[in-house]
Amino acid sequence: MHAEQMAEDYPAVVPLDAPAIDAARLLAEHRLPGLVVTDRDKPRAVLPASQVVRFLVPTYVQDDPSLAHVLGENMADHAADALDGKTVGDLIPSKGPELAVVNADDTIVEVAAIMARLRCPLAAVVSDERIVGVITASRLLQTALRPHDV
Amino acid sequence: MHAEQMAEDYPAVVPLDAPAIDAARLLAEHRLPGLVVTDRDKPRAVLPASQVVRFLVPTYVQDDPSLAHVLGENMADHAADALDGKTVGDLIPSKGPELAVVNADDTIVEVAAIMARLRCPLAAVVSDERIVGVITASRLLQTALRPHDV
Repeated sequence: MHAEQMAEDYPAVVPLDAPAIDAARLLAEHRLPGLVVTDRDKPRAVLPASQVVRFLVPTYVQDDPSLAHVLGENMADHAADALDGKTVGDLIPSKGPELAVVNADDTIVEVAAIMARLRCPLAAVVSDERIVGVITASRLLQTALRPHDV
Repeated sequence: MHAEQMAEDYPAVVPLDAPAIDAARLLAEHRLPGLVVTDRDKPRAVLPASQVVRFLVPTYVQDDPSLAHVLGENMADHAADALDGKTVGDLIPSKGPELAVVNADDTIVEVAAIMARLRCPLAAVVSDERIVGVITASRLLQTALRPHDV
């Protein structure tokens, strides 16, 4: 089983210039730990779901989390509005995890070695420098646990 | 919407003394970014999926990832055997992310603030010091994007 065959069935990729809300929707809909951000089909960075969550929190609450408690439920209901007008590029952390990049013909042990070393929840699968898929850590475990019927 | 209502429908919790393979199966089956490890029903640590992936890789390959390429497919097929005989406690990283712990009545903004600050992919929801649920970052985004129909 090669990396390309291990890749997720759904897109876990978002372009740098896409609206931030698109990234949030992809993460939510497919329950992903993060997305691979691309720049002209080349993998560029990893956007962890916890980083997108960060943007649901007003800056003054990030600075003083105890303020979150005094915000009303109404505020909480409109948390996602904070993503309006932002792009995926605006969300990428400056100190985020390094993106794991693997080749389409890498084996499961090669993918696991790279993912583990970078402590990254996902790996971009590339062929001729272009992204052809994404493997999450949980997908890799799924493949490892069922080697004979996938 | 309070933290307890936001929690996942399935267990994302594993006791410290459970077999390591149980943690791998939970992560794989529910496609989780990580699990909350408990000690007598109290949240103790976070076990990221990428950390479990690390144990699929033989030590000599962790030290020299280029060796992974020369391992045959047969080796790759038995990667999960490396978890045999280990417990969840054996897998917990010494330098892992700090576990986010929230109260059952915290709001979405409070949960988001804590999760974002700790860069943790999941939060343990506690009531009277005992774990009552787990919220993943993607679940939180799902809740934020659909405030009115969940």
